[in-house]
Amino acid sequence: MGKANKAKDADEKGITVKKQDDMPEWYSQVILKAELADYSPIKGCMIIRPYGYAIWEKITDYFNCLIKGAGVKNAYFPMFIPESFFRKEAQHAEGFAPEVAWVERKDDHEERLALRPTSETIMYDAYARWIRSYRDLPLRINQWCNIIRWEVKDVKPFLRSREFLWQEGHCVYETPEERHKETLLYLDFYRKVAMDLLSVPVIMGEKSERERFAGADATYTIEGFMPDGKALQMGTSHDLSQGFAKAFNIRYLGKDEQFHHPYQNSWGISTRMIGAVVMMHGDDKGLVLPPLCAPIPVVIVPILFDETKEAVLAKARELQEELGKDVLIDDRAHLSPGYKFNDWEMKGVPLRIEIGPKDLEKGHVVLARRDTGEKEFVKFPDVKSHVGRLLNTIQEDLLRKAKAFYDSSIIPVTDWDALLSTVKGGKMARASFCGNPACEESIKAESGGITARCQPLDSAKAKGTCFKCGKEAKLDMLFARNY
Amino acid sequence: MGKANKAKDADEKGITVKKQDDMPEWYSQVILKAELADYSPIKGCMIIRPYGYAIWEKITDYFNCLIKGAGVKNAYFPMFIPESFFRKEAQHAEGFAPEVAWVERKDDHEERLALRPTSETIMYDAYARWIRSYRDLPLRINQWCNIIRWEVKDVKPFLRSREFLWQEGHCVYETPEERHKETLLYLDFYRKVAMDLLSVPVIMGEKSERERFAGADATYTIEGFMPDGKALQMGTSHDLSQGFAKAFNIRYLGKDEQFHHPYQNSWGISTRMIGAVVMMHGDDKGLVLPPLCAPIPVVIVPILFDETKEAVLAKARELQEELGKDVLIDDRAHLSPGYKFNDWEMKGVPLRIEIGPKDLEKGHVVLARRDTGEKEFVKFPDVKSHVGRLLNTIQEDLLRKAKAFYDSSIIPVTDWDALLSTVKGGKMARASFCGNPACEESIKAESGGITARCQPLDSAKAKGTCFKCGKEAKLDMLFARNY
Repeated sequence: MGKANKAKDADEKGITVKKQDDMPEWYSQVILKAELADYSPIKGCMIIRPYGYAIWEKITDYFNCLIKGAGVKNAYFPMFIPESFFRKEAQHAEGFAPEVAWVERKDDHEERLALRPTSETIMYDAYARWIRSYRDLPLRINQWCNIIRWEVKDVKPFLRSREFLWQEGHCVYETPEERHKETLLYLDFYRKVAMDLLSVPVIMGEKSERERFAGADATYTIEGFMPDGKALQMGTSHDLSQGFAKAFNIRYLGKDEQFHHPYQNSWGISTRMIGAVVMMHGDDKGLVLPPLCAPIPVVIVPILFDETKEAVLAKARELQEELGKDVLIDDRAHLSPGYKFNDWEMKGVPLRIEIGPKDLEKGHVVLARRDTGEKEFVKFPDVKSHVGRLLNTIQEDLLRKAKAFYDSSIIPVTDWDALLSTVKGGKMARASFCGNPACEESIKAESGGITARCQPLDSAKAKGTCFKCGKEAKLDMLFARNY
Repeated sequence: MGKANKAKDADEKGITVKKQDDMPEWYSQVILKAELADYSPIKGCMIIRPYGYAIWEKITDYFNCLIKGAGVKNAYFPMFIPESFFRKEAQHAEGFAPEVAWVERKDDHEERLALRPTSETIMYDAYARWIRSYRDLPLRINQWCNIIRWEVKDVKPFLRSREFLWQEGHCVYETPEERHKETLLYLDFYRKVAMDLLSVPVIMGEKSERERFAGADATYTIEGFMPDGKALQMGTSHDLSQGFAKAFNIRYLGKDEQFHHPYQNSWGISTRMIGAVVMMHGDDKGLVLPPLCAPIPVVIVPILFDETKEAVLAKARELQEELGKDVLIDDRAHLSPGYKFNDWEMKGVPLRIEIGPKDLEKGHVVLARRDTGEKEFVKFPDVKSHVGRLLNTIQEDLLRKAKAFYDSSIIPVTDWDALLSTVKGGKMARASFCGNPACEESIKAESGGITARCQPLDSAKAKGTCFKCGKEAKLDMLFARNY
């Protein structure tokens, strides 16, 4: 509750710190003042406010469209998972043990139930009943749901919280090749969400053995890099081992009339995506949203005086009609135009249209871009086509700018000192690496928190020796601090 | 798990009981065999399978469209509710006490947390921070989420389960009149979902004092009536008392510069809607879906022989192209046309198109209606317009048929014996009633479960005396057994 009060104090004043001076405080203020989320009285939990949830709806709609086109169907599984299910896959149980919350038992004869930290086990138990023959494969199911990971205490809205929203896809295939191909397909869908919808550049890569999902043969990631010099894992897609299929006895009768264990993948993105948009594009005035994920892509602010009010409002409504239903007219009578400009800038609306009595006389409006602050006059007949073009331009410019930053942040290094100074300087280091979990552990421990982020999918084969231990290099790895 | 096995045994045989002979067993078989839902290893919980979830998506899309048009915005609140929040509104705490599940505490200093059985308290705690002036009103927020009510042990998929999906709308207004007007607006949206989307007729009415939501001044319902002679409450909308606003200290500064407690409503529908569709329209062959809520409104079953296979499939694909993307071609090679017919009838697909080599020669297809079994030949050029018309007709016919059943099921009664025999005969009794909770309690107890369902909104003022106690009648009430 302390944080909520702190924000109230600063409420009418805009963001009170510069993004580059104190990014955590800046982030918290943007989240609260743009009304994306709020802290809750429950430790570790956030409230997703309507403006933040509307961005989540943009993400879910876009992603549903991609996966449904690929034959994935949505479903819903119970949020309660019997304790024995976790134990069936040893690595999985160990991996999630510290994070799990349990339901208080009322009946002694009932097994202890966990609140899902992820749904592999409850889903695969059902898959074992549903899958009988190769004709039932591939089986492609996704669910949108809330997820509980109890270890989080200090909430960072959208980035870390005890409860968050996500989707988890769980597919089953006859062959490891089919599985792997689609594991990368869903990863590529994540890249599209990040880059095409949110204008947040990501690198698609493979996680190291140490960072692999509990129970996977391989974990792939889309890895973003935030303006404060920290990497952000924004989505993962896993080639699961056959461990789950064996543990849950998922078998199918093949064309060869024999029973086989199938191959599986699982993949997820969460409300963390919203945190990435905020951090990537926001500035000292507040949020900056790419048009495609903006709940309000365009706001019209009419400049109202008593004598000309009706004429200006009529023209504003005509423009709104022309531009479509997501366009908002801010006709609040008790607020000044200047206050409204600040308000919509705080909320990151990509494009503002100003129209007053003088503009009406001259037959034009003022268009103001949120990302660059640029203003221009546009004649009434050209507004619609110009707005359309400008929204595209903003979407692309935001990605281009962010991409240039990401590209310039990756520094090749060949030794330990260079890695330390690179990451200390807010960059991401690219280095030849042995891939040994013990070596990776020592890098993290000795550096006070630098982790292996991923080996980019487009890497050439690693050459030479590991920058840290000097043994043979197996991976071309990115290292950074991370969220 | 017993039920799941039972269904497996009967798997290839279609529904093995008649709907009118054993509706509970019929219902369970339809749910399992049409793959709408499955039982889960967790007592009281169901799995919503993709085919059932697709119906839920039709409902959520339709309803989101209605409420967004009325200015309601979606959001998401934590699923954990501090114990002290329940205690703030005394009636509310008492009403939900038996149903609440709690999280096992890990840290002694943390308050006990419930899994939400409904979200009034957690939302209104936030509203108290967000609402300051009359300019913040009306505040209209909805959330789609999972809900936990632990008292359920014997799951009836979609009708009763420990966890289910729903939406809950929570709005705040300056005046009781505004509140009441919109309480009825959302009730009318529920009527539209039931009647226009699902072809399930409902009566809009007010609940008796005894059946009122814990903490409400008035509770309104859409009340359905199922073919087995039991009423089904399908959605409720509540005029909340100011008790919540006072308990959570929600206040706004009015135009009069004074602080006031606002007026609130809350309203919800759940996955229970799917249960209503199944019970209302299904028959001895399985599910029957109204076209607007059918995941697959039309299935094309090509009759395939080796020599003509390509030509028939080509025409089928041409028709699919013409009819739109939700139309499915069942080209599974290992199954006979007869098997496929049964399969899609089980799944309730409203319209089947059959096309074989002879049809190709004659330039027509066979259209088969799921609801009536009627078949007709339609020439290729007429297929698109005819299918469109026929889907409308099916949608309307299902509603008309169900409405005729409902209308004929309501029997006016004036005394206790007539009420008993009416309800025993599978009908709904309409009677003048005193409205006294004690009298209502005695009706339920003495009859072994007959409850007051609602007073229809279009009722005339009640006249005469209560059919049960003989005191002055205040309500024109519907009585029935119920789910």
